[in-house]
Amino acid sequence: MGLIVALDSYERASDVVRATCGIVDGFKLGLPLLLEVGAERALELRRFCSGAFWVADLKLADIGHVMVAAASRLVGGVDAIIAHSFVGVAGALEDLKLFLESKSTKLILVVAMSHPGAAELYEKLLDQILDEVAPKVGPWGVVAPATRPELVRLTRRKLGPSVKILSPGVGAQGAQPGSALCAGADYEIVGRAITASEDPRRKAEAIRVAQGRALERCAGGA
Amino acid sequence: MGLIVALDSYERASDVVRATCGIVDGFKLGLPLLLEVGAERALELRRFCSGAFWVADLKLADIGHVMVAAASRLVGGVDAIIAHSFVGVAGALEDLKLFLESKSTKLILVVAMSHPGAAELYEKLLDQILDEVAPKVGPWGVVAPATRPELVRLTRRKLGPSVKILSPGVGAQGAQPGSALCAGADYEIVGRAITASEDPRRKAEAIRVAQGRALERCAGGA
Repeated sequence: MGLIVALDSYERASDVVRATCGIVDGFKLGLPLLLEVGAERALELRRFCSGAFWVADLKLADIGHVMVAAASRLVGGVDAIIAHSFVGVAGALEDLKLFLESKSTKLILVVAMSHPGAAELYEKLLDQILDEVAPKVGPWGVVAPATRPELVRLTRRKLGPSVKILSPGVGAQGAQPGSALCAGADYEIVGRAITASEDPRRKAEAIRVAQGRALERCAGGA
Repeated sequence: MGLIVALDSYERASDVVRATCGIVDGFKLGLPLLLEVGAERALELRRFCSGAFWVADLKLADIGHVMVAAASRLVGGVDAIIAHSFVGVAGALEDLKLFLESKSTKLILVVAMSHPGAAELYEKLLDQILDEVAPKVGPWGVVAPATRPELVRLTRRKLGPSVKILSPGVGAQGAQPGSALCAGADYEIVGRAITASEDPRRKAEAIRVAQGRALERCAGGA
């Protein structure tokens, strides 16, 4: 039953990390925050909760050379880095995977997205991404949207039990806590619902409780 | 006959900008550089050549909310921002376009990429990107690879004369200077061939000359 907090603004980030450390499993550093203060200062946030799982959400989508250069600013400071599967393997994800392996950093691939426009394009490649790209690249984890539990289920079915599934979209984007976990995800990613809350710790605890209840219901129903 | 220098590392960036200012048309700030020092310090490079055309190559590929937050770190400091067309319009590029318009910042969309893996996935959506996504979003410019001149020609034919075409892949990635211009591009983007050169100014001048010669040849042949 996993919960990761998405941090997209530096302003309250250290307060949120301190308040929710021990309650949540990890933190996701978003591109807006990384651009705001640069990688070095962003990585210093880890000192407020060093044992948690830290992810850099670069959503890398470039040729291998550039993705490796971008990732090199963050390896050592985070446990995992997120890239897009749609850039393909040759000359792109194969280079990034090799580099991250050499730096003991996990690769997480976006396989599907949560917004309406994703159905127009990204989803058309979903079978190819799940059947060809992901098996070839062998990521530690993948990102699939909590707002589309059927895509989470499909991802779990196709990629098997060992790959981790991280699901954004819980909270402000509309998915209920626990809904992605019930569909087979390992972690739900929650941003504004926690970071914009007046009491991030209490909010995170409430989401934990809601996740537990949802899991009891769906396990009972199964 | 356009030439833009891609800056992906901060180390020599200010020297390269100073050396090539007046020779080239613009500079592209890559994600590796932006992560390295943060947006604010990266934007200070502009003072070494303020009249040039400055582009932030974020290759944004996220939901609208996050792309807008990332872009907000750079608007005011650059003339244009690059995003991926494959994320689609609804809930993604429509939000970014509106935001950038409100900040008088140009939107540039990647429509195709230069590495081998791009043929596996991205290119399968090329017709849809050129026929539906680009016309709906109405970007100021698009990115199409110099290494694939047939894609540059197709992009020009489908999107018409008013959209700007920027073509990376000249130099280290293998395309000859002028090859993309001959195929219909407005700007060629050159990175390492200039930034890693011992004499960036002379190298930029040599590329200008090579571009001119190539254009004479292809115009003569047309």
